[in-house]
Amino acid sequence: MSVDLLVKKIKEKQNPSVAGLDPVIDYVPQHIREKAYAQYGKTLKGACEAIWEFNKGLIDALYDVVPAVKPQSAFYEMYGLHGEEVLHRTIEYAKEKGLYIILDVKRNDIGSTAAAYSKAYLGKVDIDGVEAEPCPVDCVTVNPYLGTDGVKPFVDDCKAYDKAIFALVKTSNPSSGELQDMLSDGKAIYEHVAELVNKWNADTIGESGYGAVGAVVGATYPEQAKILRSIMKQSYFLVPGYGAQGGNAKDVKNSFNDDGLGAIVNSSRGIMCAYKKQNMPGEAFADAARAEAIRMKEELNSIL
Amino acid sequence: MSVDLLVKKIKEKQNPSVAGLDPVIDYVPQHIREKAYAQYGKTLKGACEAIWEFNKGLIDALYDVVPAVKPQSAFYEMYGLHGEEVLHRTIEYAKEKGLYIILDVKRNDIGSTAAAYSKAYLGKVDIDGVEAEPCPVDCVTVNPYLGTDGVKPFVDDCKAYDKAIFALVKTSNPSSGELQDMLSDGKAIYEHVAELVNKWNADTIGESGYGAVGAVVGATYPEQAKILRSIMKQSYFLVPGYGAQGGNAKDVKNSFNDDGLGAIVNSSRGIMCAYKKQNMPGEAFADAARAEAIRMKEELNSIL
Repeated sequence: MSVDLLVKKIKEKQNPSVAGLDPVIDYVPQHIREKAYAQYGKTLKGACEAIWEFNKGLIDALYDVVPAVKPQSAFYEMYGLHGEEVLHRTIEYAKEKGLYIILDVKRNDIGSTAAAYSKAYLGKVDIDGVEAEPCPVDCVTVNPYLGTDGVKPFVDDCKAYDKAIFALVKTSNPSSGELQDMLSDGKAIYEHVAELVNKWNADTIGESGYGAVGAVVGATYPEQAKILRSIMKQSYFLVPGYGAQGGNAKDVKNSFNDDGLGAIVNSSRGIMCAYKKQNMPGEAFADAARAEAIRMKEELNSIL
Repeated sequence: MSVDLLVKKIKEKQNPSVAGLDPVIDYVPQHIREKAYAQYGKTLKGACEAIWEFNKGLIDALYDVVPAVKPQSAFYEMYGLHGEEVLHRTIEYAKEKGLYIILDVKRNDIGSTAAAYSKAYLGKVDIDGVEAEPCPVDCVTVNPYLGTDGVKPFVDDCKAYDKAIFALVKTSNPSSGELQDMLSDGKAIYEHVAELVNKWNADTIGESGYGAVGAVVGATYPEQAKILRSIMKQSYFLVPGYGAQGGNAKDVKNSFNDDGLGAIVNSSRGIMCAYKKQNMPGEAFADAARAEAIRMKEELNSIL
């Protein structure tokens, strides 16, 4: 199972973290931007070529430190068709470097349309008898608000093509509680979603003891993470909110099982913009990102 | 306001319906597919060129009948980068023909990432002082599971750039009730979401009496639609589930206000595949789509 591959990579690198690739143009060092603008102008194409150089440098600096990368689709869609093209290029390059790819798309729709989203990233499309893979990654994030028939097509493709998903359960943002924390039958909505995740996950358990259906659980809500860890024992957690959003290593401990597995912690800005935080020149962005990824790895290992 | 423009177009065409453009390759008539495969092979590119010809034919046949089209992003993402490119081409073409564009993307994320999604479709991106529009449409759909800070960036762009959104409230699929119907404080989750929609919508009301924040309310749940109509008096409803999913004209009546406004009913397969349902040759797909769109318009007007 795909989640077994993730666990294997986490063990090999001794690093339960994932580097988010959420490249706003302002994060890209000045010298890279200037070079791209000189060739393509201050255009969507220019921005995207700068982002590509930045991503490539980050992947080169990180691929032997982190087991996985998580491109955030929004930051590519934001640059239009050129952005989509750079997303595809980034995925290809990260794959060549042996990284596990979690594409953060938070897709959701009703049955047949959810199936189309799933084919886009996990499955294959049939073109009059010829199969094609539109944008194959290892794993995507999905939003569960539409219920089982909106998620099932993804789960089916996880089984058919050996892939994985993370369903949003308790998100890291300040207003996540508005709906997710509402009580129904004495339980929060996020607990009900966790029980659905268990159902979806039940017949997908791999050798690692974890299944294809994981959960997004924000680092910013450690108490809820503790409850959710006890409900979804066989689901991997994708943990956003560490670093820039305020979650620290102690906060994410609750998302792990006692064996030190069960969660992968994301850092995006913390790694991508490490050179800015350290007041280092833009030319040092890759070294700064690598140093921060190693620091994060050591910090996570120190609490596990 | 953008919603005023939608209302104007609905009144001009005397038609409260929207044609969904959800082009699976199997929907495309054989002669169009064969022509595209001859040139590009049974490839993603070949499929997309066939889809483009189909979309173009549909838009040509429908633009003076329907006020709006709703491309469903999943069915373009499903064909990879070529699919994205045809989505952009389709949007451009529909815009040239004067159609209001509702891009069905159901995007959702935390604050800064939601802002990136919003910029992608409603707003503008800043490239070191130069503004660009990645993929401008009139309106997108959003998923509210992350709460206010996941939706607010879209609302802000609605105000800044004169756009609109439809938030998922009660979706048309069989399992929509799993989470959306759960009771909390004596009300269903969809009612709580409706109250949030009211809050988000409050300071965006245009001349038409409707605001920038609408709601997706499935035709398959007419009783819930009645309740939701009474809660969100100033929100336009986007109503999926008519036709192929089982909702009929009587079922959608509850989504309208007494003045015959307040809702726009979507039909995708019903229009796109009308030639199949009528056992007409593929060459007649555009005429069949037009006839079905006119039939639907008349049916809707008969119940209003």
